[in-house]
Amino acid sequence: MKAIVFDAYGTLFDVHSVVAACEREFPGHGAALSREWRAKQLEYTWLRSLMGRYQDFWRVTEDALGFACRARSLPLSAEASTRLMEGYLQLTAFPEAGSALSALRASHKLCILSNGSPRMLDPLVANAGLQGVFAHVLSVDAVKIYKPSPLVYELAPTHLGFDRRDIGFVSSNFWDVSGAASFGFQTFWINRTGAVPDPLGYSPVATLTSLAELRA
Amino acid sequence: MKAIVFDAYGTLFDVHSVVAACEREFPGHGAALSREWRAKQLEYTWLRSLMGRYQDFWRVTEDALGFACRARSLPLSAEASTRLMEGYLQLTAFPEAGSALSALRASHKLCILSNGSPRMLDPLVANAGLQGVFAHVLSVDAVKIYKPSPLVYELAPTHLGFDRRDIGFVSSNFWDVSGAASFGFQTFWINRTGAVPDPLGYSPVATLTSLAELRA
Repeated sequence: MKAIVFDAYGTLFDVHSVVAACEREFPGHGAALSREWRAKQLEYTWLRSLMGRYQDFWRVTEDALGFACRARSLPLSAEASTRLMEGYLQLTAFPEAGSALSALRASHKLCILSNGSPRMLDPLVANAGLQGVFAHVLSVDAVKIYKPSPLVYELAPTHLGFDRRDIGFVSSNFWDVSGAASFGFQTFWINRTGAVPDPLGYSPVATLTSLAELRA
Repeated sequence: MKAIVFDAYGTLFDVHSVVAACEREFPGHGAALSREWRAKQLEYTWLRSLMGRYQDFWRVTEDALGFACRARSLPLSAEASTRLMEGYLQLTAFPEAGSALSALRASHKLCILSNGSPRMLDPLVANAGLQGVFAHVLSVDAVKIYKPSPLVYELAPTHLGFDRRDIGFVSSNFWDVSGAASFGFQTFWINRTGAVPDPLGYSPVATLTSLAELRA
């Protein structure tokens, strides 16, 4: 492997703070609301991709939040929506991310490849002090379609100049791992929660419980 | 409108019996299991479509059932899997379907356009006594990609020989209505359950509570 490509949300950056923010806005509904918000966020990326009606991840995330609140009859003010959305700009990196990336960086080019739009990803990388760690921070926004389209994964070999078989791909989302493996990357699944793999026809090279287990 | 195209599952045919069958196999888990089964069934159609890795709806439905059981640590025997899957071949039409279709048939060509594979759709139409009602029973299997890809909706104008703007499309799934409206059909949303519409950029011509409200 010459390069390692990382998913962002849930893989490098912890979305737990978004769950906590949902609970602050709607006490007693935080867990269910944030679960539905996330489910609809992904669903809308897949549906818009198949419809050929791309909108960026900020817009899709905002639409998903609106739906999740309406579906529960939770009144979402413009101010609350802004507060919850801004949580996505302030996610912290997982505790082990910094040291794991530093170790890997000595021997591999590192990239981010995310559904997030550049204006969502840039603050995360900056706030986590990870500027300079990544050779490229790649967004689906460049191709106007979401993961797991092969057009998205193709961004990495294109920008890195390496063959896809020489690229490792790391994600905590099994469907993302499946799409990346189908494309031809060597895949690593970060399974922090004991999740069950989806039967989509592909298995990762290895299943790890944290980024610290990635060995060069 | 010269023709009316119907979604099958949940629109013409009631999937309630599948929920009941889940409860018989796994008492106390029927509602949650069937909800997850359905969610994963759709998720896998979208993911496989985006990955370019089509498998037919029978296979996807079976994979989704397996996942939903594993995720809940429910032991699924081969016999139980067969029993639950066969429920999909024995769904009944909604009570108002027969008379609504008979009335519409006098003035419009009628079609089914479904994610289901032909071997799944044919028994449903036959068991409901609806042979001869539909000019075409169209399956995504002909194009090896799932709804809401425009390649799927294109099957209807191709087989009917009508312009897409002269075709009505009826579904109980709002995302299917959205995909069909994005394609250019006149859409009708059957909302039997008071569901909240998904913000995907499209609204139906009308929202109805049953097929009986479709007026010629």
